[in-house]
Amino acid sequence: MPPIKKILIANRGEIALRVMRTAREMGIATVAIYSEADREALHVRYADEAICIGPPPSAESYLRGDKIIDAALRLRVDAIHPGYGFLSENAAFARAVGEAGLIFIGPSPEAIETMGSKLAAKRAAGERNIPMVPGTDGAITDRNEAKRISAQIGYPILIKASAGGGGKGMRVVEKPEDFDEQMDRAVSEAVSSFGDGSVFIEKYITSPRHIEIQLLGDQHGNIIHLFERECSVQRRHQKVVEEAPSLVLTPEIREAMGRCAVEVGHACGYYGAGTVEFIVDDSLAFYFLEMNTRLQVEHPVTEQITGVDLVRQMIYIAEGKPLEIKQEDLAIRGHAMEVRVYAEDPATNFLPDVGTLQTYIRPQGNGVRLDDGFEQGMAIPIHYDPMIAKLVTYGQDREEAIVKMIRAIDEYRITGVQTTLSFGRFVMEHEAFRSGQFDTHFVSKYFTPDRLETEFDTVYVELAALIAGQILEKGNSAKASKSELPITKNNWKTRRR
Amino acid sequence: MPPIKKILIANRGEIALRVMRTAREMGIATVAIYSEADREALHVRYADEAICIGPPPSAESYLRGDKIIDAALRLRVDAIHPGYGFLSENAAFARAVGEAGLIFIGPSPEAIETMGSKLAAKRAAGERNIPMVPGTDGAITDRNEAKRISAQIGYPILIKASAGGGGKGMRVVEKPEDFDEQMDRAVSEAVSSFGDGSVFIEKYITSPRHIEIQLLGDQHGNIIHLFERECSVQRRHQKVVEEAPSLVLTPEIREAMGRCAVEVGHACGYYGAGTVEFIVDDSLAFYFLEMNTRLQVEHPVTEQITGVDLVRQMIYIAEGKPLEIKQEDLAIRGHAMEVRVYAEDPATNFLPDVGTLQTYIRPQGNGVRLDDGFEQGMAIPIHYDPMIAKLVTYGQDREEAIVKMIRAIDEYRITGVQTTLSFGRFVMEHEAFRSGQFDTHFVSKYFTPDRLETEFDTVYVELAALIAGQILEKGNSAKASKSELPITKNNWKTRRR
Repeated sequence: MPPIKKILIANRGEIALRVMRTAREMGIATVAIYSEADREALHVRYADEAICIGPPPSAESYLRGDKIIDAALRLRVDAIHPGYGFLSENAAFARAVGEAGLIFIGPSPEAIETMGSKLAAKRAAGERNIPMVPGTDGAITDRNEAKRISAQIGYPILIKASAGGGGKGMRVVEKPEDFDEQMDRAVSEAVSSFGDGSVFIEKYITSPRHIEIQLLGDQHGNIIHLFERECSVQRRHQKVVEEAPSLVLTPEIREAMGRCAVEVGHACGYYGAGTVEFIVDDSLAFYFLEMNTRLQVEHPVTEQITGVDLVRQMIYIAEGKPLEIKQEDLAIRGHAMEVRVYAEDPATNFLPDVGTLQTYIRPQGNGVRLDDGFEQGMAIPIHYDPMIAKLVTYGQDREEAIVKMIRAIDEYRITGVQTTLSFGRFVMEHEAFRSGQFDTHFVSKYFTPDRLETEFDTVYVELAALIAGQILEKGNSAKASKSELPITKNNWKTRRR
Repeated sequence: MPPIKKILIANRGEIALRVMRTAREMGIATVAIYSEADREALHVRYADEAICIGPPPSAESYLRGDKIIDAALRLRVDAIHPGYGFLSENAAFARAVGEAGLIFIGPSPEAIETMGSKLAAKRAAGERNIPMVPGTDGAITDRNEAKRISAQIGYPILIKASAGGGGKGMRVVEKPEDFDEQMDRAVSEAVSSFGDGSVFIEKYITSPRHIEIQLLGDQHGNIIHLFERECSVQRRHQKVVEEAPSLVLTPEIREAMGRCAVEVGHACGYYGAGTVEFIVDDSLAFYFLEMNTRLQVEHPVTEQITGVDLVRQMIYIAEGKPLEIKQEDLAIRGHAMEVRVYAEDPATNFLPDVGTLQTYIRPQGNGVRLDDGFEQGMAIPIHYDPMIAKLVTYGQDREEAIVKMIRAIDEYRITGVQTTLSFGRFVMEHEAFRSGQFDTHFVSKYFTPDRLETEFDTVYVELAALIAGQILEKGNSAKASKSELPITKNNWKTRRR
């Protein structure tokens, strides 16, 4: 396959910039696509060329595979990188890209299809004896058989609607005596919610962690893993803080999970960058959850601890090159932490708070990486995911990554919208997080908005009062200047924390 | 010793911010000092407290140890970090800090004194059998004896004025027949330049490289090295591009140099962070040059390849803690590159070009670290070293670090002053640099200002002409917008390179 010389990035925001930066480092020209709402966006400015593909919402632009392929052909690109979200896990799009004579920088359409279907994915994993959450194979037809299986799995168990989602038609059964009652409720909820009363049974994991393994596979059958990412801190079932490595995995479990993930990759003939997600319980038993057939949002933490540029590898793989990195070459070095910065208000259950970035001052320095898609004065469009940035820190160990994160959050100044920065700081300082004693229930268990830092305006009012007091104390208000006062805004903030 | 809770940073600019960031991560309060010219400087804003210590020039402020110690006592700090330059290698200041009951974050005054004197340093190193550039032990008294030594060292040799500096009174002698003539010239130059005709002889290194070893030593006699930095690319005898590791060292030579550097450290009872500088010739023979008893400007490249935060270690050492890092724990991972960004015009032999930063857009993303001390709209004061920033990149290997550097330089937008960014780009793209075939003569050998990129204004004029041409070609000038044109500023720049 000839080398890729020009890439269209079928995405927007920080991930479009992320991909373009590596492309530029490789001497590859870049094409941005954008909706009418993104005319002034940073990814448009950064690209070598940019082309408007329609109005918002996404259905009219970023999801219009036909228009995107059209633009790619018109601008004579060699390949399309889909980023994450949008069309990144759309097998039909991947297939159409190939049929148009272009390279899709990602896995084969078949692999996307297999892993896109929960059933097909579990079947593929099952054939390779990958551990999965124990339960019934399909919908329950015989209640006594279901009780027998439940006893075998061990209580508590979970009854789930086959057609379910979002927690509806889901019941936890703590002990055998409650089985019938909860079963009746689950079935009736399933009927009323989905018009389909079929339910199945799964082991209920009391304290689940979400831990995922990063894979890289080439088109010659080689697959390696790049260790794990711990993604248990979630709000609204979405990740918001990630780190690598996980504090709880032993080297043996890490290796076992890595081997399983590679097996899952082989099960679907995987190539490109992909992620195998696992649920890990408090005994460190792990169960296959699903595979994401694209670059993950949280991929930078893996890049920081392994030194591997995942986007560069994706491009090499798409060019048909065999993987140069061997499993034995890889080692974890240090610790990396990511806080996703969303334009959301943690005080109102993380409701999006779009608007204009009135102040936007980025953190910097040793151990800080910021992947973002905005600049001061830019508006965050209402049409898209309200992520502003991914703030990543790294240090020799977890403690160093955490203190660098707190320092970086304090340096980061955003006004005009509420952000999840204050929530990120709350997590970094929380004892459960610091000690590693947390699971996916972290937010519901520990977080209430009154735990957040006082807002900035209040800080200023209180600070003004303090400074006034000091001036009076000094007895010479005329000469007192910021530099002569022992208290300034920053150290005052440090003190009260 | 009790833990340090508050540090005064006796410096300005990027290094003051660098130290404060780590202090903040460690929960240590920070005090900035500033001259009247630095009232609006970033390091003043970043500190928890700030105190003005006098007007420029430095002799009235940043070099006034008495005022600095006074401020430190008044604001009840525990320790003073001197950064680099200014008072960082002033033994009297280090002593006065200690006598005032404060901790000097650096080596003992005695170690600074020993290594600050060329003669004392060489004597200390000589006692430990550290290799030094062969030559006469002192000034020549007997010309025949000098000739005998020269023959023993091997030609070419160098005759140097004892009182010399800046290249004056220095002559290269290529062969024995030229000895008398060059000796006469050297002596007469020495007399006319320094009023002192005494000269000495040294081996002339034809193709010298400047390679230095980073040390960390604690107050309990433990010293480790953190490998080398290659600093051969210099302009006006000052470093401007640095990297780690060096492309030319073999593992054996690296280890031997590391061992020698540790020996030099032991020779003066060194503790803190220090750097032992060596001259390396083209056969990889290395010779002790001097020891810098402070944090170096180029320390970040070492941090990137080892994962060690050197400032954090300096603070631990100053607190009297034993080193937790053992030599065998350390390994080189990847490659790091630094380009110093000075407000200097490479086209006029790097004359300082101070002024206001009209545009100041920082590079970002994977593998980029920027340590700077300015923001858009700030003026670079004429009174100080005109360094704006240190741009550091890191990757899996040297090539990746270089392409990331070029990408980062292209992202970095500075207008209002000329900078060395264009020179940095020239170095990164130069074949001699890429292949590693360079020495301290790199700039004089290869660099002429006409090799630099065309200036930005010209770029715009030419670009405008190109776009106009495309609009005409399309035959519909009214509808043509940036996004519809296949050429934009960025890809045009990429193309012409």
